[in-house]
Amino acid sequence: MGRDLMTTTTSVMRSEIAQQPEAVRRTLDALLPLTGEIAALAQQTRQVLFIARGSSDNAAVYGGYLIQAHGGRLATLASPSIATTYRAKMDLSGVLAVAISQSGRTEEIVDTMRWAADCGARTIGITNGAGSPMTEIADVSLLTRAGDEVAVPATKTYTTQLAALAVLALGLGADLDAGELRAVPDEIEATLEASEDALDEIVERLVGVQGAVVSGRGMAFSTALEAALKLKEACYLHAMGLSYADLLHGPIAVVDADTPALLVAANNGPTLPGTVALAQRVVSAGAPAYGIGGGAALAGACDLAVPGPDLPEWLAPIGLIVPAQLITEKLARRLGYDPDAPRGLGKVTQTS
Amino acid sequence: MGRDLMTTTTSVMRSEIAQQPEAVRRTLDALLPLTGEIAALAQQTRQVLFIARGSSDNAAVYGGYLIQAHGGRLATLASPSIATTYRAKMDLSGVLAVAISQSGRTEEIVDTMRWAADCGARTIGITNGAGSPMTEIADVSLLTRAGDEVAVPATKTYTTQLAALAVLALGLGADLDAGELRAVPDEIEATLEASEDALDEIVERLVGVQGAVVSGRGMAFSTALEAALKLKEACYLHAMGLSYADLLHGPIAVVDADTPALLVAANNGPTLPGTVALAQRVVSAGAPAYGIGGGAALAGACDLAVPGPDLPEWLAPIGLIVPAQLITEKLARRLGYDPDAPRGLGKVTQTS
Repeated sequence: MGRDLMTTTTSVMRSEIAQQPEAVRRTLDALLPLTGEIAALAQQTRQVLFIARGSSDNAAVYGGYLIQAHGGRLATLASPSIATTYRAKMDLSGVLAVAISQSGRTEEIVDTMRWAADCGARTIGITNGAGSPMTEIADVSLLTRAGDEVAVPATKTYTTQLAALAVLALGLGADLDAGELRAVPDEIEATLEASEDALDEIVERLVGVQGAVVSGRGMAFSTALEAALKLKEACYLHAMGLSYADLLHGPIAVVDADTPALLVAANNGPTLPGTVALAQRVVSAGAPAYGIGGGAALAGACDLAVPGPDLPEWLAPIGLIVPAQLITEKLARRLGYDPDAPRGLGKVTQTS
Repeated sequence: MGRDLMTTTTSVMRSEIAQQPEAVRRTLDALLPLTGEIAALAQQTRQVLFIARGSSDNAAVYGGYLIQAHGGRLATLASPSIATTYRAKMDLSGVLAVAISQSGRTEEIVDTMRWAADCGARTIGITNGAGSPMTEIADVSLLTRAGDEVAVPATKTYTTQLAALAVLALGLGADLDAGELRAVPDEIEATLEASEDALDEIVERLVGVQGAVVSGRGMAFSTALEAALKLKEACYLHAMGLSYADLLHGPIAVVDADTPALLVAANNGPTLPGTVALAQRVVSAGAPAYGIGGGAALAGACDLAVPGPDLPEWLAPIGLIVPAQLITEKLARRLGYDPDAPRGLGKVTQTS
């Protein structure tokens, strides 16, 4: 298919990206009333263990930072093969196992959740799959209201998972203002509008690039991982999602004139100065730096930048991923690929 | 520098790779007597939290699988910025915090270890840095005996960390045979000898490659991550270290004729069949598959393969990384790079 046709054709992924303000609003309306139920379940638990893969695993990274930075509890990621391959036995009493799956049907995740319950954990399931096996096992289900998602790359099921995790953090007693959550749908809408034009030049510069580094720190690390995953699955780009610190422990060596860095940050908060410094380091290494969010400080340090949402740092990831989704969708079409159906991937991944 | 010169010149990294049998032997001799001390410290703890970055983080992944699969305790990875950037307060009583750092001086890791202790955790430090700040904080120090490491890419400090983690698992009461550990130095020696010739063809085929996927499952996932890090830092290759399951959740799309997969597995154990199946899937997608270890089964499913150590699955990662180190060192020189001093990297990484 020729280039002109590809750049004018739209995709299901593009329309699902646009549905996110409404999907997040519906999800918040449905889940905010459940904070009491979450609090009751969590009363006997001291820590959170996330069970997830793929985009859902990136959502779990957000949940982990949120609950640890603001909820005063340890929150780390499980290794599903400990349950499914090694069938290990351990005492998980006092653990709140939070499984995340778009479909609620990925066997590895469901099996690991069942294993956690058998080991004594309380369980929460975050899924868009009403009536799925995950909801049958979970002590409490947090059903996202994304509606059907047809394109293979997750978009609205991812951002609604982040919304559910913000509700989870509130249910766990995080020292955060629930009212701030209500601004999220409008800010996603504003980000969609503001970023549309700013993206085109970045997309053009990514044409022909073989590899890229995507980095973010703290809460925004989840966004870097998810942006890298989008670019890998829909644009076949060798995109590495790395934390600021891990980037400096080796992979900074790959950054050069042919390997741009995409840097993600909230407009404020404790990780912004470090991300700006990283942009300066990337540029001084002779590599292009493209910013997503981070306000004027990050934009000033990067070659090109897209504005991010005007949200407090703890909620920024729900909007920060949106420009990355748009870049992915546009770049895929620009390269002649169908973003809705990347090669080798199905909508429900079975990895047993 | 011309190609012929580069391929005949040796490097400090190469000699440090060769020192591993002796370094691991010295480390085991020094640390195996400490299992009682570890057991005493761990008596009041129910779970392990690893604190590490870079190669040490990959070592922690091995430790996590080992302790969970065989030690009956939860063992997950900390996010250092929760301590250093967000300065979160939480109750870590009952937690054994295990910090890993080659130098014992990386501020972010030392600060996170101090934070864990302040939150009530017991602490163990695994480091090659005798007298370093880490050893002053740790309740128990497990000093690796790698000797001075001069090349920037960690080799013998990494494998001695794995040896220390195997000792840690034994100290935590893992259902494993300590006697099997004694075979490790000889098996590293045998792997060094057996892989030398088999590597050259793989190195030749990696010349000109922009990106690669490195995958392993369970215990060998740590090897995949570390092999990918080596290739990134010394060969500037866009190498993605991915678990089997995460590879199928999206990144499988990047595998094509120009993007080979390096697949790592022990010669036996529960993850071998899945790794062989992954090799078959990669080959059927038209991509080259190169095996490290995995016996005849993996070699038969791959285009080319290097033999791995003849060790039980729980110890295989200590030897499996060796062929990947050799590939990295040879490929770097073949490409005209100095493996001892990659651009942009220093020996002690400060990421505060």
